[in-house]
Amino acid sequence: MKGKIKIVTIGGGSSYTPELIEGFIKRKDQLPIGEIWLVDIEEGREKLEIVGNLAKRMVKAAGLDWEVHLTLDRREALKDADFVSTQFRVGLLDARIKDERIPLSHGVIGQETNGAGGMFKAFRTVPVILEIVEDMKELCPDAWLVNFTNPSGMVTEAVMRYGKWNKVVGLCNVPIMCRKIAAGALKEKEEDLFFRFGGLNHFHWHRVWNREGVEKTGEVLESVYTKPDGLKNAMQGLKSSGVQNIPNIAFLPDQIRDLGIIPCMYHRYYYITDDMLKEELEAFAKGETRAELVKKTEAELFELYKDPDLNIKPVQLEKRGGAFYSDAACELIASIYNDKKTTMVVSTRNNGAISDLPDDVVVEVSSIITAGGPVPISWGGFDSSTRGLLQLMKDMELTTIKAAVTGDYGTALQAFTLNPLVPSGKIAGTILDELLVAHKKHLPQFQEKIAQLEAESR
Amino acid sequence: MKGKIKIVTIGGGSSYTPELIEGFIKRKDQLPIGEIWLVDIEEGREKLEIVGNLAKRMVKAAGLDWEVHLTLDRREALKDADFVSTQFRVGLLDARIKDERIPLSHGVIGQETNGAGGMFKAFRTVPVILEIVEDMKELCPDAWLVNFTNPSGMVTEAVMRYGKWNKVVGLCNVPIMCRKIAAGALKEKEEDLFFRFGGLNHFHWHRVWNREGVEKTGEVLESVYTKPDGLKNAMQGLKSSGVQNIPNIAFLPDQIRDLGIIPCMYHRYYYITDDMLKEELEAFAKGETRAELVKKTEAELFELYKDPDLNIKPVQLEKRGGAFYSDAACELIASIYNDKKTTMVVSTRNNGAISDLPDDVVVEVSSIITAGGPVPISWGGFDSSTRGLLQLMKDMELTTIKAAVTGDYGTALQAFTLNPLVPSGKIAGTILDELLVAHKKHLPQFQEKIAQLEAESR
Amino acid sequence: MKGKIKIVTIGGGSSYTPELIEGFIKRKDQLPIGEIWLVDIEEGREKLEIVGNLAKRMVKAAGLDWEVHLTLDRREALKDADFVSTQFRVGLLDARIKDERIPLSHGVIGQETNGAGGMFKAFRTVPVILEIVEDMKELCPDAWLVNFTNPSGMVTEAVMRYGKWNKVVGLCNVPIMCRKIAAGALKEKEEDLFFRFGGLNHFHWHRVWNREGVEKTGEVLESVYTKPDGLKNAMQGLKSSGVQNIPNIAFLPDQIRDLGIIPCMYHRYYYITDDMLKEELEAFAKGETRAELVKKTEAELFELYKDPDLNIKPVQLEKRGGAFYSDAACELIASIYNDKKTTMVVSTRNNGAISDLPDDVVVEVSSIITAGGPVPISWGGFDSSTRGLLQLMKDMELTTIKAAVTGDYGTALQAFTLNPLVPSGKIAGTILDELLVAHKKHLPQFQEKIAQLEAESR
Amino acid sequence: MKGKIKIVTIGGGSSYTPELIEGFIKRKDQLPIGEIWLVDIEEGREKLEIVGNLAKRMVKAAGLDWEVHLTLDRREALKDADFVSTQFRVGLLDARIKDERIPLSHGVIGQETNGAGGMFKAFRTVPVILEIVEDMKELCPDAWLVNFTNPSGMVTEAVMRYGKWNKVVGLCNVPIMCRKIAAGALKEKEEDLFFRFGGLNHFHWHRVWNREGVEKTGEVLESVYTKPDGLKNAMQGLKSSGVQNIPNIAFLPDQIRDLGIIPCMYHRYYYITDDMLKEELEAFAKGETRAELVKKTEAELFELYKDPDLNIKPVQLEKRGGAFYSDAACELIASIYNDKKTTMVVSTRNNGAISDLPDDVVVEVSSIITAGGPVPISWGGFDSSTRGLLQLMKDMELTTIKAAVTGDYGTALQAFTLNPLVPSGKIAGTILDELLVAHKKHLPQFQEKIAQLEAESR
Repeated sequence: MKGKIKIVTIGGGSSYTPELIEGFIKRKDQLPIGEIWLVDIEEGREKLEIVGNLAKRMVKAAGLDWEVHLTLDRREALKDADFVSTQFRVGLLDARIKDERIPLSHGVIGQETNGAGGMFKAFRTVPVILEIVEDMKELCPDAWLVNFTNPSGMVTEAVMRYGKWNKVVGLCNVPIMCRKIAAGALKEKEEDLFFRFGGLNHFHWHRVWNREGVEKTGEVLESVYTKPDGLKNAMQGLKSSGVQNIPNIAFLPDQIRDLGIIPCMYHRYYYITDDMLKEELEAFAKGETRAELVKKTEAELFELYKDPDLNIKPVQLEKRGGAFYSDAACELIASIYNDKKTTMVVSTRNNGAISDLPDDVVVEVSSIITAGGPVPISWGGFDSSTRGLLQLMKDMELTTIKAAVTGDYGTALQAFTLNPLVPSGKIAGTILDELLVAHKKHLPQFQEKIAQLEAESR
Repeated sequence: MKGKIKIVTIGGGSSYTPELIEGFIKRKDQLPIGEIWLVDIEEGREKLEIVGNLAKRMVKAAGLDWEVHLTLDRREALKDADFVSTQFRVGLLDARIKDERIPLSHGVIGQETNGAGGMFKAFRTVPVILEIVEDMKELCPDAWLVNFTNPSGMVTEAVMRYGKWNKVVGLCNVPIMCRKIAAGALKEKEEDLFFRFGGLNHFHWHRVWNREGVEKTGEVLESVYTKPDGLKNAMQGLKSSGVQNIPNIAFLPDQIRDLGIIPCMYHRYYYITDDMLKEELEAFAKGETRAELVKKTEAELFELYKDPDLNIKPVQLEKRGGAFYSDAACELIASIYNDKKTTMVVSTRNNGAISDLPDDVVVEVSSIITAGGPVPISWGGFDSSTRGLLQLMKDMELTTIKAAVTGDYGTALQAFTLNPLVPSGKIAGTILDELLVAHKKHLPQFQEKIAQLEAESR
Repeated sequence: MKGKIKIVTIGGGSSYTPELIEGFIKRKDQLPIGEIWLVDIEEGREKLEIVGNLAKRMVKAAGLDWEVHLTLDRREALKDADFVSTQFRVGLLDARIKDERIPLSHGVIGQETNGAGGMFKAFRTVPVILEIVEDMKELCPDAWLVNFTNPSGMVTEAVMRYGKWNKVVGLCNVPIMCRKIAAGALKEKEEDLFFRFGGLNHFHWHRVWNREGVEKTGEVLESVYTKPDGLKNAMQGLKSSGVQNIPNIAFLPDQIRDLGIIPCMYHRYYYITDDMLKEELEAFAKGETRAELVKKTEAELFELYKDPDLNIKPVQLEKRGGAFYSDAACELIASIYNDKKTTMVVSTRNNGAISDLPDDVVVEVSSIITAGGPVPISWGGFDSSTRGLLQLMKDMELTTIKAAVTGDYGTALQAFTLNPLVPSGKIAGTILDELLVAHKKHLPQFQEKIAQLEAESR
Repeated sequence: MKGKIKIVTIGGGSSYTPELIEGFIKRKDQLPIGEIWLVDIEEGREKLEIVGNLAKRMVKAAGLDWEVHLTLDRREALKDADFVSTQFRVGLLDARIKDERIPLSHGVIGQETNGAGGMFKAFRTVPVILEIVEDMKELCPDAWLVNFTNPSGMVTEAVMRYGKWNKVVGLCNVPIMCRKIAAGALKEKEEDLFFRFGGLNHFHWHRVWNREGVEKTGEVLESVYTKPDGLKNAMQGLKSSGVQNIPNIAFLPDQIRDLGIIPCMYHRYYYITDDMLKEELEAFAKGETRAELVKKTEAELFELYKDPDLNIKPVQLEKRGGAFYSDAACELIASIYNDKKTTMVVSTRNNGAISDLPDDVVVEVSSIITAGGPVPISWGGFDSSTRGLLQLMKDMELTTIKAAVTGDYGTALQAFTLNPLVPSGKIAGTILDELLVAHKKHLPQFQEKIAQLEAESR
C-alpha cells in the first residue's frame, strides 16, 4: 500500500456518508487519501448526487485535494481500491419498512438485524456482497473489505464462509455505545477502562476493569441495568443520544445480576421480549416503526444536505441512530493502514477467542487491529446462563446464511424456527411467505418458491 | 448381587405400579426377585393401599412367592436394596395442574416436562431425589437408581452432578414410541431396524437403518411427519395409543425435511409452538388440561384397582399415556442384572457420545446396557439446524437444576429466560412468582423469596 | 445385497488366505457366497497359484459350490463385488526386511507398523489403496472395503480422508489377543466379559468388566503386566501363541499401575523402548528380525500349501503371528451382511467416541457392527497419562499419510520427527533417505527426491 | 495499590539481582517504589549479602531513596507486599549439576527445564512455591506473583492448579530473544514487527508480520533456520549473546520449512535430539555441562559484585545466559502497575487462546498486560505437524506437576515415560531412582520411596 490511498464506499448515497467523510477528514494526517469513490445504484442516484456533493464541499472546506468520485459503475470504482467499505441497503428503507411491519402485522417483532426482518435483510444482502467479493477478487485483490451493512455479523460470515475472502472486517457501533455507557456509569474516562467483549454482532456481552485492575462489571450492571434511570444517568453528558434503534426499556434486575456480565442493548429483544414487542406494536399502530421514523429523518437530512452552503456534517445526523458507525470505519481503516494495534470490537474469525464456538465462525470480539487485520483477544468460555443461547444464535446465523446462498425454502423456514424472536409453527411460515413475496424483486435465489406462493394465492 | 433381589419403588402408590409389577412378572425367569417394596408418603397412603393390594394379587395370581411390602418408611425400604426405581410426584397431580394452568392463564405453555411446569417439577423433585441419594449412600450403596420421575433427564443430571451418584439411569417411554412409529411407517418389524438416538430427554432426534444397512430416516420423515395422516397410519396396529400427553398436531413439512433427522413428539412444543399453544389454551378453557384429564383417568383407574377380583394389569391403564414406561424400567433392571447388553435409549453421562456437548453432562442416547450400567453409542455431531438448539436446551436444564439446588431466584429467572417455551421479560417473572407461591409447600429452598412475594402481594 | 455374494481379496496370494477361506467356510450358513476372487500381482503369481489351489481344495472339501477365481486383473475382479478385503503387501516381505533392518542398522527400531518401517509401509501402500478405491467407485460403488493391510489404521484413515470413501473398516488381530489374555488372566470365559477399547491401531488401551458389572481392569493390569510370568500364565490354554510379532518383554509395573487402563502389546515400543530396541538389535545381528523369520515361515508354509492332499488350513499357520486376523475379517463381513450387531474392535471414524480427538479422524474402538457399518461405542476422554501421547500419535499418522499422498519430503521428515520411535535430528534424515532409496521402486510420489538423493550419493 | 510499592524477591541472592535492580532503576518514573526486600535462605546468606550490598549501592548511586532490605525471614518480607518475584533455585547450582550430569551419565539429555533435569527441578520447586502461595494468601492476598524460577511454565501451572492462586504470571527470556532474532533476520526494528507466540514455556512457536501486514514468518524461517550461519547473522549487532543455555546447532531445513512457523531455541532438544545429545555428552566428558559453566561464571560474578566501588550492573552478567529475564520481570511489574497494555509473552491461563488445549491449562502466549493481569491474544489451532506434540508436552507437564504434589512414584515414572527427551523403559526408572536419591534432601514428598531405594541399594 504505497502512494495515495483509494477508498471505495458502496452505498455511497447513504445519509451516513457525511460522517464517513468527516471521519476521514479528522484522520487526514494518518491517511494519505488520493481518491474517494462513492458508488450507488440507479435507484439511489438522486441521493448519491446530494450527499456526494456535500462530501465534495466538506473535503474542499477542509482544504484537501482528495478526488471525490460519484458513480453508478461499481466495477470502475473497485479497480485498484485499497479499502472498500459497504453501507448499502438492498431495497432501500422501503424494504426495511416491510421487514419490520410484516412481522408486526402478525404480532411478531420484526427487528431489522436479528429478527425476521434482519434475516430478510441477510437474504437480500448476501447475494450482493458475494458479487462484490467476486469483483474484488478480480479488480482489487489486495483490498480490505470493511462492512457495516447490517446484519453485519452475518454479512461478514457470508463473505468468509461462502466468498472465501478473508480480508474482511465487520463493524458495528453498539460496542462503542456500550463503552460510553459503562464509562458514564463509572464516572471514568473511557480510555481509563479496559473492556473485553465477546459474542456475536448485536448479541455480545462485555466485562470492564479500571486502571487498578479491579473488575467493575458488577458495578456497571447494578447501576445501569437494575435501576429505572440507570441508563439515562449513565448517558448524561453524552452528546449523541445513543443507539436510537432500541427503546431503553429496563431489563429484569434479577436476571441481569445472575448473568454477571453486561449485555448489549440488543439483548433486550431476547431478555425482555414481551415489553419490546408491546412497544413495537404501539409504534406499528401509529405508523412509527423505526424504519418509518428513519425514513422521515432521512428525508429531512437530505433536505439539509442540499444546502449548497453546508460543508460540514450537520449535527442532526447524530439523531439518526448510527452515530459512531462511520467513524469506527474510518478508525479501522486508519488502524489497518498504520498498523496502529488499536483495540476495537469487530466481527472476525473466532480462532478460539470464544472457546464455546468453533474456530472458523465469525464472532464479534475485542481485537487488536494490525496491518494484517484484526487479531482477537481471548474471551474464554461462557457459563450455562449464556453459552447455549450464544450457540443457538450462531447456528441461527449459519442457517440463515445457508438459506440466503442456496435459496432453499426449508432452510429458510428452519432459520425462522431457530430464531428465538420468531414464534415457531404456522405463523413462522406465514411471515416467511409474506416477506418472500413482498421482497420478490431482491430475492432472485428464492424466485421459484415465490412464484409458487404467488400462484397459490391467486 | 447374589441371592434374591430386593427392588424398591419410590412413589409405589402410582397408577403405573401394575404395569411395573406386570413387567417384573413377565421377566420372572430373568429376575430372582425376593422382595418388592412399594414406598409412598402419608398423602399417598390410600392409593398405596389400593394399588399395593392389586400388586400383591397380581404376584399371587402369577404363582410367585415374592414378598410385596407397602410402607411409608423410605429408609426401612431402602436398606440393602438392589434396585431403586423412582416414580414419585411431589405434590401429586394437583401440583401438575398448577404447573400447567398457571402458565396457560398467562397465555403461555405449561408443559409438565420442559416448559415452565416442567421446570417447577424439577424445582420440587430435585431436593427430594438428592435426599433419596443420601439415604442410598448410607443404606444401599451398591444399588442402581432407575429414575422415571419427570423431568427425567434433569433429575438424572441432578443425581450425577449434585448427588455425586453415578449408578443412576434415567428412563422415558418416548424413544420406545418413536421406534414403534418408525417401524409402523416402514412396515418393518421393530427388531429389524437399527436406531440411533441422540439428544436430551423429550428433546432427542433419531435415525434409522434397515437390515440391509440402508438409512430409512428420510423415508420415515416423509411418510410420518409431512403428511396429514402420516402419524395415524404409522400407528395403526399399535395396541397402545401412544404418548397421550401430546396432541398429534402436524409438523411443518419443509422444516422437517430440512432437518434430515427424525424429531420426537415433544419437539412439537419447539417446532410448532403456536399450534401447540392454541390447542392447550382450548383445553385450559374447558378445564381439560392434560393434568386434569389424567387426574380423572387416575380416579377411574383406582376405582378399577379396588376390585378384589382384579389380579392383572387392566387394559385401561394403557390410555394413561405413559405406556411402556414401567416396562422399560423392568427391562433395564433385567438388562443390568443379567448383563444383557440390550440396546436401550436412556439418560446417562454423555462421555463424548454427542460431540457438541461436554463429556460430563447427561444426555439421552442409545446405549448398551451392561451389568456395569449404560455405555452410550456414539452419535457424533449435529449440524447447524439442530446443534445450537440442543446446546441451549442443555444449558437451560443446567440452569434449572442449579436454581433447584441453590434456591436462587435470579438463577430461576435466568432458566425461565433461556427456555424457548417461556416468553422472556416481565411475563416470565410473573409466571415464576405465581408458581413459586402456588407450590410454596414443596419448595423449601425458595422459602425466603416466597415469603417476600407473599408480603409484597398483601 | 441380494443373491449370491461376490468377495474379492486383494493380495490373495498371501499365506493368510487359508485362514480367510476357513473363516468363510465356518460361516457358510451366514454367507451365501457365490464367488471368491483372489487377486495378486505379477510378482505374486506363483504364491497365488499355490495358495489359490489350496483354497479351491478347501472349498471343495467343504462340499461348497463357491467359485474360486485366481487373477492378476484387479479390475475384472472388482466388477460388482460386494466385499473387497485387502491384505496385500507392496514390495512383499523383502520390503519389510528393509523396513526393519535399515533403521536397526542405525540403532533404531524399525517396527513394521508404527515405527519408521511402518511409516514406509504407509508410503508404499497409500497410493495403491487409493487406486483401488478409485476402481471401486467405478466398478463396485456399493461394496464394503475391509482392510487388514498394515498399518491398518493409517490405511483406513487414508481411504476416508483422501479417497473420500466411507464404506471402509480397518481390522487388526491385536484386540482379539487382548481379549483372550484378559479372559485368561481372570479365568473367565471371554464372552462373560465386557470390554471397551479406545485408541488407534496398535496403540489402544482397554478396560474390562465382568458379568456382575464389576470393573476388572486393575486386576488384569496387576496379574498380567506387573508380574514376570503374568502374560505367560494368562495365555496358558490358548491354542495360538499370540501376537508373534512382539517379544513378551515385561512392562514397568509402577508405570502400568499409574496408567490404570490396559495397554496393548504394541505399547511396549513406546513404554519400554530401550528393552525392545535391545531385543531387536540382537535379532538384527543374528539376521533374525521379524521379517526374516516370517519370510522363512512363509516359505515353509508355501511348501505345505503345495501338497495336493492338503485341503484344510494347516495348524502351522497359527505360528505366523497374524492369527485371528482373517477370521476377524470373515466375522466382520458376516456381521455386516447379516446386520448382526456384533461388538468388534475396528478402525472407523471417531464421531466423538474418543472425545480427545476430532470427530473426523479414524480411531480403533469397540463398535457395533451393523449392516450400515460400524457404530462406535463411546470411550470418553483419557487422562493426562495417556491423552497427549494418543494425540501425538494421531498427528504422526496424519502427517505420515499426508506425506504418502503428496510425496513431500519435508512432510515425511516431519512425520519421522513426530514419531517417538524415531530419534529426531540428522539420524532421522539419514534413515529416511536410505529407506527412500531402498524402496525406490514402490514410491512413485517421492521419485524426484529419490533421484536427487541418488545423484548426491554418486 | 496506593502509596509506595513494596517489592519482594525470593531468591534475592541470585546473581541476576543486579539486572533486576537495574530494571527497576530504569523504570523509576513508572514505579514509585518504597521498599525492595531480597529474601534468601541460610545456605544463600553470603551471596545475599554480596549481591544485596551491590543492590544498595546501585540504588544509592541512582539517587533513589528506596529501602533495600536483605532478609532470611520470608514471612516478614511478604507482609503487605505488592509484587513478589521468585527466582530461587532449590538446592542451588549443585542440584542443577546433578540434574544434568546424572541423566548424561546414562547417555540421556538432562536439560534443566523440560528434560529429566527440569522435571526434578519441578519436583523440588513445586512444594516450595506452594508454601510461598500459602504465605501470600495470609500476608499479602492482593499481591501479584511474578515467577521466573524454571521450569517457569510448570511452576505457574502448579500455582494456579494446586495453589488456587490466579494472580500469577510466568516469565521467560526466550520469547524476547526470538523477537530480537527475527528482527535481526528481517533487518527491521523490533517495534516495527507484530508477533504472535503460542505454545508452552520453552516449547512455543511464533509468527511475525511487518508494518504492511505482510507475514514474514517464512522469510525468518528460511534465513535463520535453514542456513548454517543464519542465526549468527541474525544476531549480529545484538549486544547480548543470546540464550547461552542452548548451543546454536542447526535445525533440519526441510523439517523446519514443513513446520511453517518459527520454533524456539529449545525446540532443538525435540527436533534435533541426536545432535544436542552429542554436544551435551562432550560437555559432560569435559566437566563442562551448562550447570558447571554457570557455577564458574557465577563465582566470577560474585567476585565482581564484592567490589565496594561497583554500583552498576556489570556487563559480564549478560554472558550468564538469562539476559533480559529480570528486565522482563520489571517491565511486567511496570505494565501491571500502570495498566500499560503492553504486549508481552507470558505463561498464563489458556482461556481458548490455543484452541487445541483445554481452557484451564497454563500456556505461554502473547498477552496484553493490564492492571488486571495478562489477557491472551488468540493463537487459534495448530496443524498436525505441531498439535499433537504440543498436547503431549502439556500432558507431560501436568503429570510431572501431579507427581511433584503427590509424591507418587508411578506418576513420576509416567511423566518420565511421556517426556520425549527421556528414553522409555528400564533406563527411565534408573535415572529417576538415581535422581531421587541424589536430591533426597529437597524431595520430602518422595521420602518413602527414597528410603526404599536406599534400603534396596544397601
